[in-house]
Amino acid sequence: MYFHALIPFKPVNPKTRLSCVLSQEEREAFARAMLDDVIAAVLKSGCSATLLCTSAFERGDALVAVRKEPLNEAINWALAQFHCPALIIMADLPLVRAGDIQRLVSTGKDMAIVPGRGGGTNAIFLKKPRCFRADFYGASFLDHMRIAEECGFTVDVIDSFRMSTDMDEQEDLVEILIHGKGKSREYLEGLGFSLSIEKGRVSVKRSPHEEAL
Amino acid sequence: MYFHALIPFKPVNPKTRLSCVLSQEEREAFARAMLDDVIAAVLKSGCSATLLCTSAFERGDALVAVRKEPLNEAINWALAQFHCPALIIMADLPLVRAGDIQRLVSTGKDMAIVPGRGGGTNAIFLKKPRCFRADFYGASFLDHMRIAEECGFTVDVIDSFRMSTDMDEQEDLVEILIHGKGKSREYLEGLGFSLSIEKGRVSVKRSPHEEAL
Repeated sequence: MYFHALIPFKPVNPKTRLSCVLSQEEREAFARAMLDDVIAAVLKSGCSATLLCTSAFERGDALVAVRKEPLNEAINWALAQFHCPALIIMADLPLVRAGDIQRLVSTGKDMAIVPGRGGGTNAIFLKKPRCFRADFYGASFLDHMRIAEECGFTVDVIDSFRMSTDMDEQEDLVEILIHGKGKSREYLEGLGFSLSIEKGRVSVKRSPHEEAL
Repeated sequence: MYFHALIPFKPVNPKTRLSCVLSQEEREAFARAMLDDVIAAVLKSGCSATLLCTSAFERGDALVAVRKEPLNEAINWALAQFHCPALIIMADLPLVRAGDIQRLVSTGKDMAIVPGRGGGTNAIFLKKPRCFRADFYGASFLDHMRIAEECGFTVDVIDSFRMSTDMDEQEDLVEILIHGKGKSREYLEGLGFSLSIEKGRVSVKRSPHEEAL
């Protein structure tokens, strides 16, 4: 089945909750590395991609639409124009693999949704995207389930640790260093990040000597 | 395939990181409610269960072994006696369902492992349990992968949000109130817990009036 992926992306000053361990320039490069991993999985699963960017941005392997309105309005503007099934997927899911996206898009239901931690939504696959409207932020998983019901959609909730794992806080970086295999891991390791295990708790540390590499 | 589940359980003063929102008595009752959900899923998947308890405890639907040694030693003592496939599963996975356990035990590999967040391991299924040794705490996922390699086991890493979600901190309770369907959710709601959404972040709040119910 042909489908198209929408990936919201913020090129400038993204992931501010990681400011404690990454400079703005590094956060921007890290966001691009995560986007590399997401786009690679999307393309490998046979899908094409459009980035919904908050400011000018260029990529050779995806279409780019620069939209100034807030996230939900930008997504809903895009969905209204779809004549084929659509996947909305967040740009900060560095563990996602093509096979995971295949689990989503091979659903027998009208819609498949991947919950993120803390009530969020990390991906939605819609066979009839024009009927739907996005409502990210807050307990968006519950909101999207309600909107699906209003649309009369049958829904598949996809149970995936890898796709539920987004990157917001320092402790999230642990997951990349343990389970990641792509550009995001390479980028963090290049900055000198490694695992730190103290009193049975796992966190990340950054080697000061490698910052200049 | 017949298999037997080992569920480590601490009846007295468990889940101390939840002390900010639950008294000791409530944490003990909450731990029992989560155990109810895990045992229900295990039994429904056609498996029998033994609890490895740190102190005396009684249940009608599971065998109980009281073991005074630390967790890993207790599990390894039990594994050494197994003549059938074994599932080791944590007692604080209130979102687990019988179908999730079926995903584990129907693996074609020698072992299936479910990572928890932060480098942990939430469940392991072993076709030849006597060769293996448990090494929980710290980055146990990586340790268990290494031990599996030493044993010459082929390994299936099971990608599951529900089974990766254990309950350690207050913010983890959000997942039960959003995705839970069992006794754990019933227990928290009975205490007056509900979702709280502020500035796009989802957390839990507890109604003071319902504490006396």
